[in-house]
Amino acid sequence: IETKLPAVGTTIFTVMSALAVEHNAVNLGQGFPDFNCDPALVQAVTDAMQQGLNQYPPMPGIPALREAVATKIKALHAREYSANTEITITAGATQGIITAILAVVRPGDEVIVLEPCYDSYVPNIELAGGTVVRVPLTPHTFRPDFDKIAAAITPKTRAILINSPHNPSATIWSREDMLQLQELLAPTEVLLISDEVYEHMVFDGRQHESAARYPGLAARAFIVSSFGKTFHVTGWKVGTVVAPAPLMAEFRKVHQFNVFTVNTPVQHGLAKYLADPTPYLELPAFYQRKRDLFREGLKQTKFKLLPSEGSYFQCVDISEVSELSESDFCQWLTKEIGVAAIPLSAFYGNGFDQRVVRFCFAKKDETLQAALARLAKL
Amino acid sequence: IETKLPAVGTTIFTVMSALAVEHNAVNLGQGFPDFNCDPALVQAVTDAMQQGLNQYPPMPGIPALREAVATKIKALHAREYSANTEITITAGATQGIITAILAVVRPGDEVIVLEPCYDSYVPNIELAGGTVVRVPLTPHTFRPDFDKIAAAITPKTRAILINSPHNPSATIWSREDMLQLQELLAPTEVLLISDEVYEHMVFDGRQHESAARYPGLAARAFIVSSFGKTFHVTGWKVGTVVAPAPLMAEFRKVHQFNVFTVNTPVQHGLAKYLADPTPYLELPAFYQRKRDLFREGLKQTKFKLLPSEGSYFQCVDISEVSELSESDFCQWLTKEIGVAAIPLSAFYGNGFDQRVVRFCFAKKDETLQAALARLAKL
Ligand SMILES: CSCCC(=O)C(=O)O
Ligand SMILES: CSCCC(=O)C(=O)O
Repeated sequence: IETKLPAVGTTIFTVMSALAVEHNAVNLGQGFPDFNCDPALVQAVTDAMQQGLNQYPPMPGIPALREAVATKIKALHAREYSANTEITITAGATQGIITAILAVVRPGDEVIVLEPCYDSYVPNIELAGGTVVRVPLTPHTFRPDFDKIAAAITPKTRAILINSPHNPSATIWSREDMLQLQELLAPTEVLLISDEVYEHMVFDGRQHESAARYPGLAARAFIVSSFGKTFHVTGWKVGTVVAPAPLMAEFRKVHQFNVFTVNTPVQHGLAKYLADPTPYLELPAFYQRKRDLFREGLKQTKFKLLPSEGSYFQCVDISEVSELSESDFCQWLTKEIGVAAIPLSAFYGNGFDQRVVRFCFAKKDETLQAALARLAKL
Repeated sequence: IETKLPAVGTTIFTVMSALAVEHNAVNLGQGFPDFNCDPALVQAVTDAMQQGLNQYPPMPGIPALREAVATKIKALHAREYSANTEITITAGATQGIITAILAVVRPGDEVIVLEPCYDSYVPNIELAGGTVVRVPLTPHTFRPDFDKIAAAITPKTRAILINSPHNPSATIWSREDMLQLQELLAPTEVLLISDEVYEHMVFDGRQHESAARYPGLAARAFIVSSFGKTFHVTGWKVGTVVAPAPLMAEFRKVHQFNVFTVNTPVQHGLAKYLADPTPYLELPAFYQRKRDLFREGLKQTKFKLLPSEGSYFQCVDISEVSELSESDFCQWLTKEIGVAAIPLSAFYGNGFDQRVVRFCFAKKDETLQAALARLAKL
């Protein structure tokens, strides 16, 4: 059978996780915690199931959870979204992104992605019949180059996808970056899809510059987030998309005929759990400590550390350690040293290799220490 | 913002459920049970969460659940599917159907749907850029008309969607129907998407004629099912799609960039629960008793009962009761009599009205009795 997605293979995350299992390697590849979530969250979901909250919820999500999201965004970013018409609960952030794309990208529309980027964006755009326009972030610093972005905008540009805190580079967009984007888009009708799944992982006193904080961006933006990442339950597959009502109306038309709706007891559990902001307010400190522990250890190796400003990733330059390509190096590191990592080349359409690989530090301290002990051999 | 889906509004199920709440009506509209699932299933999911099984499962689903599905299909339909390459766990049947459509329907391809049909099919095909070809089932009997189907097949036909047990009509396809379809498709390359979400609800000793039982159909089929419907947990949003490996490979390319994967603890809970076939083997008797209770009561009204061979629906002809359109009748019935139903016209693109409405009998006996008491007023 002829394929609609000739370029798509198995995701790098699946490949490296399988290789890690096969070689009994410490898996710092695929981004997920190896510790459990708060037992209170498990209890809240269990309570909902036992109370019989196991049938279809309303299509956009249960009101209590949408209201909790509205309250959180208002508290953090001083912007009001209507729980009724502007917030939808999704089966994970990835489903939120494809749904936004299917809702607004028409055949022939151009969509700008900034590389390196998460591997779902490009096939999502292709499935909608859109044309992918790839603009590189500056190699090694991963700063947006607004001249390049400006040059990529044409009358056919339908949307631009951004992501901060950024996977895989662990950089974050500054207030100046967001203001520049806002200025650039002001004279256009280009829509924004802002992937903010690591919103609660920003370090060293920085602040997450959500598109919600910028009126000129918020007015055109689908903002995507993930409860799985924030609450250490990546396997629950539950996220959220917010957008102004006219955009959200189009989003929901696709959403209701994609997943229709999202796991009911999980939504009730999250709604209850979100009443206390402590878990996500403490998340930066929680992950910053892990980042620092991991960075300290890496300083004993010949890896050159790149900044980790946000997300739960740490990138390193491997040029002092190996002459292998990023991809071969990650294979070798998994098989021979026993630590799995992800090559940044996997986040570029053309496999661009800048000698940088990504580690995930969302791991127990002992896991990080076990990885560091192995990496010390380098 | 210009819409990609101009015909799409809020689904009839959402509309009628909201109206039922507003008017304090007994809700026999939207198809979902008003009783809870087996506590053992809740316990199995709780156990998984407590054991820390809360991170990403493998993209196609956890092996234990895929193997349980393979075992079940082999036992019921004597066909072997590879858990590894031919079975994928989905975020509900609807997500399975859109994913199959996005995976194989190319812009300009024609896809045949048999009306009346579930309301997600048409927008799913449109989002893939396909052309919807509507073929009516015979009014009132809902039998497939193979001459009409044959006449609809062209060199551009990419796929046909079928659904048995059938929503909304509660008819099921016979062995002869399946053999005729098999013969009709034999000389073609038309793919089959077989929506079998009510597979375990067939009455009066009938057998569910899965496409899996017919080699010439199975070889070209995505077969879609729903754990939510089978185990009284429609809100858990978990289903399954099986297909021959080459089709499943294309399916997974889209699946991994749509939802990526499905709730981990729910998958573990279901895998454990499926070890005992009793719950689904007892389902026909369970629902047949409810169907009979409901039909007995309806015999006291002027509704003309249509057969209910499978699914958890009962259709009635309203012509002796009212001159209103199906749609107006359902509104009136909800507001004035206090029982919500679904007009069959909602399942036709052109709103075809044959004086038939659908009730859902997946309800507690006392709910059915309360509805019957109100309907007795008619
Ligand atoms: C969905 S698997 C990948 C998890 C992730 O976000 C990452 O590792 O980048
Ligand atoms: C997804 S809401 C509709 C439930 C259902 O399958 C039906 O009522 O037909």
